[in-house]
Amino acid sequence: MAGTDHTRESEQETPAAGPAIVLVTPQLGENIGTASRAMANCGLSDLRLVRPRDGWPNPTARAAASGADFVLDQARIYDTTEEAVADLRHLYATSARRRDMVKPVLTPRAAAAEMRQITPGGAACGVLFGPERTGLENEDVVLAQALIAVPLNPAFSSLNLAQAVLLVAYEWHLAAIPDPGRELNLAGSRRATTEELLNLYRRIEEDLIEGGFLFPPEKTPIMIRNLRNIFQRADLTEQEVRTLHGMLRTLARRRNRVG
Amino acid sequence: MAGTDHTRESEQETPAAGPAIVLVTPQLGENIGTASRAMANCGLSDLRLVRPRDGWPNPTARAAASGADFVLDQARIYDTTEEAVADLRHLYATSARRRDMVKPVLTPRAAAAEMRQITPGGAACGVLFGPERTGLENEDVVLAQALIAVPLNPAFSSLNLAQAVLLVAYEWHLAAIPDPGRELNLAGSRRATTEELLNLYRRIEEDLIEGGFLFPPEKTPIMIRNLRNIFQRADLTEQEVRTLHGMLRTLARRRNRVG
Repeated sequence: MAGTDHTRESEQETPAAGPAIVLVTPQLGENIGTASRAMANCGLSDLRLVRPRDGWPNPTARAAASGADFVLDQARIYDTTEEAVADLRHLYATSARRRDMVKPVLTPRAAAAEMRQITPGGAACGVLFGPERTGLENEDVVLAQALIAVPLNPAFSSLNLAQAVLLVAYEWHLAAIPDPGRELNLAGSRRATTEELLNLYRRIEEDLIEGGFLFPPEKTPIMIRNLRNIFQRADLTEQEVRTLHGMLRTLARRRNRVG
Repeated sequence: MAGTDHTRESEQETPAAGPAIVLVTPQLGENIGTASRAMANCGLSDLRLVRPRDGWPNPTARAAASGADFVLDQARIYDTTEEAVADLRHLYATSARRRDMVKPVLTPRAAAAEMRQITPGGAACGVLFGPERTGLENEDVVLAQALIAVPLNPAFSSLNLAQAVLLVAYEWHLAAIPDPGRELNLAGSRRATTEELLNLYRRIEEDLIEGGFLFPPEKTPIMIRNLRNIFQRADLTEQEVRTLHGMLRTLARRRNRVG
C-alpha cells in the first residue's frame, strides 16, 4: 500500500498518530495497559497487537491503562506480524541483545530523530516489541529496517515491556519539542528589575551599618559584595523583593523597640 | 552533615551509587519494585523510602523487582522526608503540575546534566517522588533546590511512579555515555572494501549484459548506476559480498542449464 493515494488519505485522517507501537504476542494484559498509558503520556495512539496471549479485549489491560482507554479502544489485533506492519514504510525492532544479523542499531533517541525525519508525523513508521520473556523472534526482527537498543546498565539490562515502550515513546515525543533546560517558575510574579534589587540591597546595607554588623569598616565592601551575591543567585521576583522589604521593616521596628 | 569528613568517607565506600531516589509515602509495593528495577536498569542503587504505606519489607515489591533485589536489600526507611535527605547536598522534587512556588524547573535531561556536573558520581544528589495519587506535599517540595517536570502530552500527563523514576534514572544514565546514534551491527564480519564491492558489481553487470537485461545500450550506464546505488545503500559486509557471489553463480548455472 505504500505510496498509494489510499495511504495518503488515512494519514490525513489521523495526522498526529505518530509511529505505530506493535506488541508481538504480549503475555500480560497489565503490560499492554501500562504500555498504552505510556503511549498516551507521549502523544501516541496507534497500538497494534499480534496474537495477545490472553485474547482481546482484556480487562486487566484496561485496569492498568489508568484512563488511556482511547489507546486500547483503537487497538488493532492481527494474526501475524507481517499483517500488522503491512502498511508501514519504516520499521524498527527493539532488541535487548545483539543479534547475529547485519543490521543498523540505533538508540531510542537516534531512532526518534530518524522517524521525525522520515515523516514529520511519524505515521508511516512502526516499532516492534517482543513478548516479555523471550523478546522478538528473528523472523520478526528481519521485517525491520533497523534495530533499537536502549543503552542500559550492562549488568542489569532486562527492561519491562511497558518501560521499553515508554522510553521509545518518550524520545519520540521529546524529539519534536525544544528542551527548555532550566526555567524559573515565577508563580505569577516577574523577575525583579536591577533597580528594585539595588534598592533592596542598599536598604539591607544601611540597616546592617546602623546595627553595627558591617564591621570593621575596611571589610565592609567585601561583606557587601558577598551578601549581594547570595541574593543575586536567588534570582528574586518583584513579589519576593517586597516581602524582604516587609521583613526588614519588621526587624527594624523590633530593634528600635528593643533599643 | 554536608561537607563533613564522614560524608566524604561514605561517598568513597559507594562511589558509583548515583543520586538517591527518595519515594515519599509510596502506596503500592508493586511500584516500589518496578522503580527498583528501573533504577538497576540505569545503574542506580540508593533507594530511600519515607513511610511506605504497607510497611517494610514488602513481598509485593520484591516480586515486582524482577531480580533487582540488591536495590531493595539496600533500601533505607525513614519517618520523615527531612531525615531521608539530611546528608544530600542538592535535591530535586518531581512534580507533574506547576506549583505556586518560585523555583527553577528542569527537564529530567537538564537535571541529569546538572547532577553530573555537581558531583561526577551524583552521590550528593537526590530526587524526591511523591505518592501515586497526590504527588509531593509542598513541605517536601520546598526541601528541594529545584523541580523536575517531565515534558509529556499535556492532555494525558499522569505518569506512573515507576515510569517517572525510570525517566529520571534513564536520563542520568545516558548523560554519562556518548550516544552512538546509528551503528551497523556487523555480526562478526567487517564492511566490504570498495574493491570487493566493485568486483561484485562488475560481475552482476556482466551477467546482466549477457542475459540481455541491460537494454537498450544507451540506457546501460544509468541502469548500472541505479543498481550500484541499491547495493551501496545496503552497506554490505565482506561475508554478504561472498554470499551474493554464490547466488550469482547459482543463477548463472541455472540459466546455462535452462539455455
